[in-house]
Amino acid sequence: MTQMQEAVDTVRTRTYSWPDPHAIAAALGRRSGVEMIQALERGELPAPPIMHTLDLDKLEYLGEGRCAFMMRAQEFHYNPLGTVHGGVIATLLDSAAGCAVHSTLPAGWGYTTLDLTTKYLRPATVASGRMRCEGSVIHRGRTTALAEARLFDERGRLLAYASSSCLLFEMPTG
Amino acid sequence: MTQMQEAVDTVRTRTYSWPDPHAIAAALGRRSGVEMIQALERGELPAPPIMHTLDLDKLEYLGEGRCAFMMRAQEFHYNPLGTVHGGVIATLLDSAAGCAVHSTLPAGWGYTTLDLTTKYLRPATVASGRMRCEGSVIHRGRTTALAEARLFDERGRLLAYASSSCLLFEMPTG
Amino acid sequence: MTQMQEAVDTVRTRTYSWPDPHAIAAALGRRSGVEMIQALERGELPAPPIMHTLDLDKLEYLGEGRCAFMMRAQEFHYNPLGTVHGGVIATLLDSAAGCAVHSTLPAGWGYTTLDLTTKYLRPATVASGRMRCEGSVIHRGRTTALAEARLFDERGRLLAYASSSCLLFEMPTG
Amino acid sequence: MTQMQEAVDTVRTRTYSWPDPHAIAAALGRRSGVEMIQALERGELPAPPIMHTLDLDKLEYLGEGRCAFMMRAQEFHYNPLGTVHGGVIATLLDSAAGCAVHSTLPAGWGYTTLDLTTKYLRPATVASGRMRCEGSVIHRGRTTALAEARLFDERGRLLAYASSSCLLFEMPTG
Repeated sequence: MTQMQEAVDTVRTRTYSWPDPHAIAAALGRRSGVEMIQALERGELPAPPIMHTLDLDKLEYLGEGRCAFMMRAQEFHYNPLGTVHGGVIATLLDSAAGCAVHSTLPAGWGYTTLDLTTKYLRPATVASGRMRCEGSVIHRGRTTALAEARLFDERGRLLAYASSSCLLFEMPTG
Repeated sequence: MTQMQEAVDTVRTRTYSWPDPHAIAAALGRRSGVEMIQALERGELPAPPIMHTLDLDKLEYLGEGRCAFMMRAQEFHYNPLGTVHGGVIATLLDSAAGCAVHSTLPAGWGYTTLDLTTKYLRPATVASGRMRCEGSVIHRGRTTALAEARLFDERGRLLAYASSSCLLFEMPTG
Repeated sequence: MTQMQEAVDTVRTRTYSWPDPHAIAAALGRRSGVEMIQALERGELPAPPIMHTLDLDKLEYLGEGRCAFMMRAQEFHYNPLGTVHGGVIATLLDSAAGCAVHSTLPAGWGYTTLDLTTKYLRPATVASGRMRCEGSVIHRGRTTALAEARLFDERGRLLAYASSSCLLFEMPTG
Repeated sequence: MTQMQEAVDTVRTRTYSWPDPHAIAAALGRRSGVEMIQALERGELPAPPIMHTLDLDKLEYLGEGRCAFMMRAQEFHYNPLGTVHGGVIATLLDSAAGCAVHSTLPAGWGYTTLDLTTKYLRPATVASGRMRCEGSVIHRGRTTALAEARLFDERGRLLAYASSSCLLFEMPTG
C-alpha cells in the first residue's frame, strides 16, 4: 500500500512525563476549591496527568466561579478528519466548567460531573494556535451547579461551547 | 506503541508514536464510510493521532450504523479527582458515535459533528480495565444523523452514555 | 374533554376541563411509582392538568422502567412555522422519560428532572396523526437515573428523541 | 374512591381562542426575521396557536439576536408533581431561543430547531408569578446558529436554562 508506506516514512514520536497524581487527590476536600485552584495555578500542586497527556499549558483563576485553560492545537490531537478531535475539545470545556464549579466550593465539599453538552461551531486545527477556554458558573444550588464554557482560537473566534451540570456533596471526613 | 516506565521518585514517562495523518485525510470521500472503517480496522489505513495519544487500541466494525472502540483506562487519562477525565470518556463516545454515522455514508459524502451530549454514570478508573465503547445510529436523515454511544467497563457495567448529531454533506470533488 | 368549534371567520375556540391536581400530589410518595402509574392508567387517579391542556390521551405502563404516552397532533399545538411546537414535543418526551424513571421507584421515593436533551428529527403536523411516545430507563443509580424517550408518528416514523437525567431522593415523611 | 370524589368536586374549566395560523406562515420568508418578530410584537400578525394554548402573554424584541417572552405560571401547566411541567418550561425556552435566531435572518431565509438542551434549576409553581424568558444568540454561522435562553421567576431568580442549535436554510421561492 503506497499510502501506508508514505505514513511509515513520516512517523512522529513524542515523550512526556507526569508526576504521581496522588498529591492532588490528597489535597482534595481539605482545601477550598479556590485554594486548590490557586495551588495548581502557582504550581504548588502538580497538574493532573491528562493535562500532560494533551499538553494543556496553563490554568488561570479568574475570580469565584470563573476559570480558564490554555492549550495549543497540535497534530497529536487530530481525528481522522484532520482536525482536533471533539473529545480533546470536550476535555478543555469540561476542565474549564468543572474548575469554575470547584472554585465555588468550601473545604470539605466535592463535586462530580453529571453531564457535558458540547456544541462544535468551527473546526480547530493547528492554525487555531494557542486556544483559550473559559468556564463560568451559571447557577450554584445546594446539590447541583450549572456551568458553561467557551473555547476560542488565538484570534478570539468562538470554536465550541458547552454546558455542564455537577453534583455537589460533602466529602467523608477521616 | 506505548512505553511506560517509572522514573526516580514518582514521575512517570511515556513515549509514543503516530504516523502522518495525511494518508487518512486523502482517503476520505474517495471511499465509502464502510470501506474507510474496514481499512482502519485491518490496519491498511493508519489510526489517527488521537488514538495513539490516548492509547485506544481497537476499532471494530459491527455492521452498518454500528461501531465499537476499545481502550484500557490508564493513569495518564486521570483528572485531578483521580478518575479518567470526562474528556477522555467523551473522546471514546464521540469516536464511536461518529464512526457509526460514517459507516452509513456513501463515497463522496462527509460529516461533521454538531454536538455531543455526554452523561457520566459511574467513574472510570484503572480498575475499569479494558473498556468497550459501542456506537449506533438512531436516525439517518438526508442532512443530519443522530447516533448514541455507550461506554462499558471490563465487567460490562455502563459507565457513560452520549447522543450526538452530525451534519452530512457532499464533499467537493477535484 | 375537548370541544372544538370553528367560530365566524377563522377563529377557533376550545374548552376543556381538568380536576384539582391535589389528589395526585397527595398520593405521591405513599405509593410506589408502579402503583401511581397504574392508578393513573386505570383512571383511579386523575390525569395531571398539563395532559388536559395539551390533550394527551393515554398513558400506558409497559413494565418496570418503560412507559408510553399517546397524543394526536392538533392545530392548537402549532408554532409560527406551522408545525407542532418543539415544547409540546418536549412535553411528551419529558413525560415518557420521567414516567419510566418513576416506575422504578419504591414508595417513599421521589424524583425531579435535572435536564432534558431533545433532538428534533422530523417536523410533526396534524398529518402525523396519533403520535406515540415511548420512554425507557437506560441507567438507574442510587442518586440519579438516566432515561431516553422516542416519539413516533402514526406510521411509526421517528420524529424526535430525548435523553433525560433525574435526581432521586427519599421523600420527607409526615 | 374519596380522592377521585374530591377531584370531581373541584373541576376547573378553561375556554380560549386562537386565530387561523396560516397568516403567519404566509408571511414567513417574505419578511426578514426582525420584521416578522416586530409584526408579532405589535399584534399585526396573530400569535401562533401554542401561545394561546399555554397563555404566553407577550413577546419582546430586544435587538438583533435577542428576544423575550412572558408567561404567568398557572395550574393548567402542572405535572403530577404539582409544579409547572418541564415541557411548558421547554416551550418558553425554545420560543425565546428560536426567536433570537430568527431575528438574525434576512428575508428569504428560514430555520428549524435541531435540538434543545434544557436544565431545570428550580421548580416553577404559581408562586413563580409572571415569568420572563430571555433568548440570545451565542453563535451565528452560515448553516447553523446556537442560542441560549434563561427563564426567571417574577423575583428574578433563574429557574431554567437551555441551549439550542438551529439549522439555517434558504427558503424555496415561488
